[in-house]
Amino acid sequence: MSFDLVIRGGTIVTASDVTKADLGIRDGIIVTIADHISGGDAVIDAGGLLVLPGGIDAHCHLDQPQAPGLASKGAKMADGFRSGSISAAYGGTTTIVPFCVQHRGTSLTAAVADYHGRAEGQSVIDYAFHLIVSDPTPAVLGQELPALIRRGHTSIKVYMTYDAMVLSDRQILDVFETARREKAVMLIHAENHEIIGWLAERLEQNGHTRPLGHAHSRPLPLEREATHRAMTLAEIAGVPLVIVHVSGGDPLDEIRRARARGHVVIAETCPQYLMLTEDDLDMPDMLGAKAMCSPPPRDTQAQAALWRGIEDGTIDIFNSDHAPYRFDGEGKLKAGPSPTFRAVANGIPGLETRLPILFSEGVVKGRIDLQRFVALTSTNNARLYGLHPRKGTIAVGSDADLALWDPERRMTITNDLLHHNVDYTPFEGLEVQGWPQTVISRGEIIVDKNELKAMPGRGRYLTQETSSAWKTREIKAWI
Amino acid sequence: MSFDLVIRGGTIVTASDVTKADLGIRDGIIVTIADHISGGDAVIDAGGLLVLPGGIDAHCHLDQPQAPGLASKGAKMADGFRSGSISAAYGGTTTIVPFCVQHRGTSLTAAVADYHGRAEGQSVIDYAFHLIVSDPTPAVLGQELPALIRRGHTSIKVYMTYDAMVLSDRQILDVFETARREKAVMLIHAENHEIIGWLAERLEQNGHTRPLGHAHSRPLPLEREATHRAMTLAEIAGVPLVIVHVSGGDPLDEIRRARARGHVVIAETCPQYLMLTEDDLDMPDMLGAKAMCSPPPRDTQAQAALWRGIEDGTIDIFNSDHAPYRFDGEGKLKAGPSPTFRAVANGIPGLETRLPILFSEGVVKGRIDLQRFVALTSTNNARLYGLHPRKGTIAVGSDADLALWDPERRMTITNDLLHHNVDYTPFEGLEVQGWPQTVISRGEIIVDKNELKAMPGRGRYLTQETSSAWKTREIKAWI
Amino acid sequence: MSFDLVIRGGTIVTASDVTKADLGIRDGIIVTIADHISGGDAVIDAGGLLVLPGGIDAHCHLDQPQAPGLASKGAKMADGFRSGSISAAYGGTTTIVPFCVQHRGTSLTAAVADYHGRAEGQSVIDYAFHLIVSDPTPAVLGQELPALIRRGHTSIKVYMTYDAMVLSDRQILDVFETARREKAVMLIHAENHEIIGWLAERLEQNGHTRPLGHAHSRPLPLEREATHRAMTLAEIAGVPLVIVHVSGGDPLDEIRRARARGHVVIAETCPQYLMLTEDDLDMPDMLGAKAMCSPPPRDTQAQAALWRGIEDGTIDIFNSDHAPYRFDGEGKLKAGPSPTFRAVANGIPGLETRLPILFSEGVVKGRIDLQRFVALTSTNNARLYGLHPRKGTIAVGSDADLALWDPERRMTITNDLLHHNVDYTPFEGLEVQGWPQTVISRGEIIVDKNELKAMPGRGRYLTQETSSAWKTREIKAWI
Amino acid sequence: MSFDLVIRGGTIVTASDVTKADLGIRDGIIVTIADHISGGDAVIDAGGLLVLPGGIDAHCHLDQPQAPGLASKGAKMADGFRSGSISAAYGGTTTIVPFCVQHRGTSLTAAVADYHGRAEGQSVIDYAFHLIVSDPTPAVLGQELPALIRRGHTSIKVYMTYDAMVLSDRQILDVFETARREKAVMLIHAENHEIIGWLAERLEQNGHTRPLGHAHSRPLPLEREATHRAMTLAEIAGVPLVIVHVSGGDPLDEIRRARARGHVVIAETCPQYLMLTEDDLDMPDMLGAKAMCSPPPRDTQAQAALWRGIEDGTIDIFNSDHAPYRFDGEGKLKAGPSPTFRAVANGIPGLETRLPILFSEGVVKGRIDLQRFVALTSTNNARLYGLHPRKGTIAVGSDADLALWDPERRMTITNDLLHHNVDYTPFEGLEVQGWPQTVISRGEIIVDKNELKAMPGRGRYLTQETSSAWKTREIKAWI
Repeated sequence: MSFDLVIRGGTIVTASDVTKADLGIRDGIIVTIADHISGGDAVIDAGGLLVLPGGIDAHCHLDQPQAPGLASKGAKMADGFRSGSISAAYGGTTTIVPFCVQHRGTSLTAAVADYHGRAEGQSVIDYAFHLIVSDPTPAVLGQELPALIRRGHTSIKVYMTYDAMVLSDRQILDVFETARREKAVMLIHAENHEIIGWLAERLEQNGHTRPLGHAHSRPLPLEREATHRAMTLAEIAGVPLVIVHVSGGDPLDEIRRARARGHVVIAETCPQYLMLTEDDLDMPDMLGAKAMCSPPPRDTQAQAALWRGIEDGTIDIFNSDHAPYRFDGEGKLKAGPSPTFRAVANGIPGLETRLPILFSEGVVKGRIDLQRFVALTSTNNARLYGLHPRKGTIAVGSDADLALWDPERRMTITNDLLHHNVDYTPFEGLEVQGWPQTVISRGEIIVDKNELKAMPGRGRYLTQETSSAWKTREIKAWI
Repeated sequence: MSFDLVIRGGTIVTASDVTKADLGIRDGIIVTIADHISGGDAVIDAGGLLVLPGGIDAHCHLDQPQAPGLASKGAKMADGFRSGSISAAYGGTTTIVPFCVQHRGTSLTAAVADYHGRAEGQSVIDYAFHLIVSDPTPAVLGQELPALIRRGHTSIKVYMTYDAMVLSDRQILDVFETARREKAVMLIHAENHEIIGWLAERLEQNGHTRPLGHAHSRPLPLEREATHRAMTLAEIAGVPLVIVHVSGGDPLDEIRRARARGHVVIAETCPQYLMLTEDDLDMPDMLGAKAMCSPPPRDTQAQAALWRGIEDGTIDIFNSDHAPYRFDGEGKLKAGPSPTFRAVANGIPGLETRLPILFSEGVVKGRIDLQRFVALTSTNNARLYGLHPRKGTIAVGSDADLALWDPERRMTITNDLLHHNVDYTPFEGLEVQGWPQTVISRGEIIVDKNELKAMPGRGRYLTQETSSAWKTREIKAWI
Repeated sequence: MSFDLVIRGGTIVTASDVTKADLGIRDGIIVTIADHISGGDAVIDAGGLLVLPGGIDAHCHLDQPQAPGLASKGAKMADGFRSGSISAAYGGTTTIVPFCVQHRGTSLTAAVADYHGRAEGQSVIDYAFHLIVSDPTPAVLGQELPALIRRGHTSIKVYMTYDAMVLSDRQILDVFETARREKAVMLIHAENHEIIGWLAERLEQNGHTRPLGHAHSRPLPLEREATHRAMTLAEIAGVPLVIVHVSGGDPLDEIRRARARGHVVIAETCPQYLMLTEDDLDMPDMLGAKAMCSPPPRDTQAQAALWRGIEDGTIDIFNSDHAPYRFDGEGKLKAGPSPTFRAVANGIPGLETRLPILFSEGVVKGRIDLQRFVALTSTNNARLYGLHPRKGTIAVGSDADLALWDPERRMTITNDLLHHNVDYTPFEGLEVQGWPQTVISRGEIIVDKNELKAMPGRGRYLTQETSSAWKTREIKAWI
Repeated sequence: MSFDLVIRGGTIVTASDVTKADLGIRDGIIVTIADHISGGDAVIDAGGLLVLPGGIDAHCHLDQPQAPGLASKGAKMADGFRSGSISAAYGGTTTIVPFCVQHRGTSLTAAVADYHGRAEGQSVIDYAFHLIVSDPTPAVLGQELPALIRRGHTSIKVYMTYDAMVLSDRQILDVFETARREKAVMLIHAENHEIIGWLAERLEQNGHTRPLGHAHSRPLPLEREATHRAMTLAEIAGVPLVIVHVSGGDPLDEIRRARARGHVVIAETCPQYLMLTEDDLDMPDMLGAKAMCSPPPRDTQAQAALWRGIEDGTIDIFNSDHAPYRFDGEGKLKAGPSPTFRAVANGIPGLETRLPILFSEGVVKGRIDLQRFVALTSTNNARLYGLHPRKGTIAVGSDADLALWDPERRMTITNDLLHHNVDYTPFEGLEVQGWPQTVISRGEIIVDKNELKAMPGRGRYLTQETSSAWKTREIKAWI
């Protein structure tokens, strides 16, 4: 047996097991896992390192075209597939699933074609596209979406807020109906749009225009409400539903109750909801804008509730929601040096820091074990979004996407350290333990000791299979 | 590389992955998993079969000496390690963890020695012992139990009912305190003893002495009560707690709430609670005694609630609670041909039918996927009871304990088919799909095409490591 | 002391007490309650009778003009203030609070003037008007509604469904904001409009056009959803909220949880939800239309849940939701002899049967006591809707509105017995125990031994005070 | 008509109504309520005052003999019926229901006789006795208790803790069974005795012997546990159950859930749980002993939870749990000047301050209205404990037990102000608004403008009727 690459002496972690073994890779695929593998055209000594499935970041925004006429005046995303994928790779992530967005009045198929163009030749790691449907016309529901799902876009996102994206309950049901017919999994951004608008208008009228107003215009009850409603819509139409970026205990309790009633609901949270609070929006000048994302970070009680959700299994996936807006006139401050919070682009960067933060705060601090770390950051995403077993695990036949992880390495996160094109990180100064030493994609070393070894454009588009959420059990509908 | 045994062409299932690969085994250990393994002193063609980690039955009773003076007058267990382990092996199970029981006034250490004697030279598969503490004297708490835990008995069970076993809340706390100090995991039988006695006495006084009286003396609220109380005791003392044989929705809800509050509680259910109901106790003559176990089977609503618990992740382990009493004068009817329900030995057999029932009702009927099947029947038990990664998974370095499983094979369960020494099965007539074709323990074929290939006595005692329940997160105590 | 009327020897019931005493009435007002009252221009011997505060039906529809262009093609209400008030009086009810509805594009103030016109000279009992806002224009929110609330319309209703009525979440917040400023109590019809429409369309497409389709287009989850959402909107804006016609356990649980979180939510149910089920819609021909109301009756499990809500205090008011559509071409069948369920007017009659049904099913069957009966049917309505202590109790200074109630009288409800102008009752054939013998309004006998004694037009319009819901505790808002 | 006493111009408050009316009293009974009453042998001008039903304190301890051999070495109660009833009267309370305790090995009937002796000739207000059963022998269960219940002791208390009182679950069931047969209402002190003992022992071993240790030995989870268990026992045996002195949110949630399941559970809280916290036990020297009661006061979160329970109707009665131990060598410090917390008598005084505290914190601060104040402090107790309508309301035929209450009077609570025989109040320094000006018992002024006007001994023993809890709905049992 010959191998292109052998990884020797590491500790392999999967969602199930922690194993001392060597890995043999051929043609980018893991072909052998064995107690000892000799030979190998190339060999990496992984002694003292964890061999993790490369991270999958299944919630990130890259080079996403903005709809015209937004309040934030079209703040530009600073990261496309090139810088985004490089930043991800440096952080141990080997697959990204950004969003291909349909804007109103445009074709979803055309949006996919356009987004392929944006990705083509840029990414250093493999990628798939979730589709965002913002205009579910009969043509989209009847032809475009079914065709795209069959072509491998098996995860579809809808929004309950944002002027350019928001769907009515009925439109959501329409999309769900198509998703059910074609066995796609649905993602939803659950905040009540009308309450936000109503509160924001009043806050502005009362002169509360600073970034903290963003948090005050989106209090937890409206996320709880939208979460409950979204799950009801999914219950009616009969689809598995991913509640993305859960930010606190109240929506989490709704999710627990729906799951206990037997509904297939998957919950995601993100580093910012474990690490930041509303106080981070309450900073001098416009600095609070650096922590502005939706839903907003809450408080320490919400953080504790989310950890309990991670511990008791209610939260199953952990992604960054990377939204790369610079803190400058192209990004957050596009609308001016001191805009009202409604004119500040929502979202914060995080592709590169996601794994170190969860490893350090979760594994090192004794809240989760290694297997759960891998499940949350990689395997569950792969299974949920139809990329497994090609991605998301270390198994024979799987792509050799690996993060050789130094569990002892201590780092202080600063933006200088990072490789995205955003000019800040909301986690500036955070000390973490655990950092990737070598990152491998399809058997190729792409990052090694903090140096990029791969050429942009080597990343490949991934066709998604049907989500595991459709395979685990029968889902009933009310029609 | 040379292999004692190669398993070729099967579909390997772990709690994380489903992989087409070959397995290479040497010295009883899995040493290679690869896309293709040539050679091998022996080769099994596993084409069309699932290669599962052998089942672990972590809740079964074998050759368990009875305390003197019981109501059931010392009904004798029909299975010891020999027939019990053989029956288990035929059903795809390769590890058993029966209970070594301390009786009042006796030494726990002596009980362990005695139980080793009962196992020695008998078992065809590997085994460990949970310890049952029924007399937590200062010597037991201070010396015997700590020493035994350190020697590898890291799982301890206590009872909240049964005259010969029941501990007071305070005694439970004492045992929990030692378990916390030595990092053992606790198992508990949660039914309120005093309510049972009070109801049973009144039922008997009212002439309700038939088997159905057993169910009426143990209604669901008293299991809910004891479950809540047991978890409170664990919360106070700070230990991880396994609630064994959960029988319905009410105790399950208590468990969900405790988990959501942040407590480490693990829930188990058993085939009888998914397949039987109270009606099975309400049969002519004494036939209902065949379905008498504690807690009793409930109703279809309880069954549905348990499936929801399996689906939403509240229930994590699935065991048989095999209690081998024959339906004759040595067993169930020891106290006479028509005894009051209180004089009938509790418990039903199930070692051999556990995996087929869950596979057929769970996987084939589309309620759980293959990975979850493996997690519930093997991996989670292994991790919880300190046997992982030696047992419970298919990974390099793990024991080659395997069930080559025919997912298409249809069988009708009858007692003739089974290999235990009990003269009935409560699942008589149940049609299932999925059955083990070849069962392997440490690389040795022990059952092949329904024929025993191994000698009793080949099974080895397993020293348990510390439970995963102690490793996943910090557990607080109130003292 | 002189009295116009003395009621002697009865058993007086209030929400607090059951007292044997005489009542002395002067100028329509209760002026004396005493162990013995001699004299009196007129005397009623109430020996063996209960003296109840006359019922208050705070949820009924009378002579309500339909919005143009409805699916049900403007089915006409068969009862106006005349027949409606007479029917109510016969059933022991002495105050009604029907709805004055604003239609889109029209003035609320004009609607009130119009509705006064419809009431003028018609009613035999006193009445107030809830206002329905269906077009919350700036003029309505800024001028009309505040002026009307100050003039005594302190209860405002909004709808989350019905094409002609439905408000968006934002519009609801706008109305709530005005209600908060002016201290009005809000009522809401909580069903998710878009889900109904989506389901109804699909049911019709699938040929399910018969009355049962009505129930299938409005399953319990969408009532649960809307109830949760409505309470969230009230939490954000900071108003007390009445959830009218709760139909089952799921929405009730949402209400319990909101109340336990500290929100001021009041729950109502109606006789149809305790007595009917979906099966009543599944009848030959169009007969099921007789049980069509929104939300639809559910099942026996829902009925039991509602009784538990009445018992544990979650449900505080009990009204009829009388909606008087005849089962003919003017009413239910306006759209034709066999219309699709969407073209059938929603609602069922019940003004006259409300008290006997709750008395018989609640008091006689031992589910509630007399005080709670009075609280549910009279006092709580009076307090909630600003009519107390003038109405809703038996106290010095209160209007002498009384039902002298024969608790032993057994009746079989048939439509022949009733005095509304509807040609059926959904409770046909129901046997009840307890019936009003004499009904008194402001000291005047209006019904005596099943004979009308009063002239239409004697009833007076009642100005509402601020609701008790605003007086019990501080209500917080999120803005 | 002639009256012994007329109360003119006051505002009468009942659980249902607030009415301006005069009261006419004859032979100690309210005989007339009228808009104007002329005449009267005596007249009180109640202008500007509220006329409340006198308070009923249904949870207080007076002259209660201690069981021998207690840890607290028989600390003596400083108040008997004389000083206790005087103190109560000064605070606006006109009925007390202290506990007649049976000690182990003694007859319950004898205890009742003894307690009558202690009360005879002492009390200035009327009184009844709850019975405490601490030794449910066959004679007690079979003869004494039934006879006593039939004689009018219709409320029975049992304890789940305290060495001298604690019953096993089975004994509790036995008492409940008798209570069910005889239709008595049960009260229970719900704390898990064994957990307390276990924690206390460890705290002492670790040197934590100061008063704060009392709180640490009785954390909220063990109250939650015992509450759940007590309600399960009541569910099994089928009796209405009063959970006395609920101290925080967790047990309250258990109660909410049991009530929502349909069980008849009544919750009580006391002033100390709304006003004190654990910090009050953490004071210099032994001062913390002044706030030692069981369960212990918790924290501000618990206080908020209890207010929510009062607001949403989960908590229905409000009593003092007056336990009159002086802070001296006869009382709290009987075991020495600096005893371990286990040797300090549990309980704090509060008979006189109960009404002012709830009025000030509840009514004046806008958390409850006047009717609910009366319900919580008087009417609900009267109904629950079989004293209604003789006590607990203002109605014709009821005893003229009244508190003429000045709602504007501001007072600072100090022990100097109080009339109990305890040398401290835990509410020292608390400022309240609202104080009784004149207190009347059966038509006799007993306190007027802070002066005692009545002779000890005038108070009468009250025979209790069957509790309202037995009358509201059918209660099922599991046997």
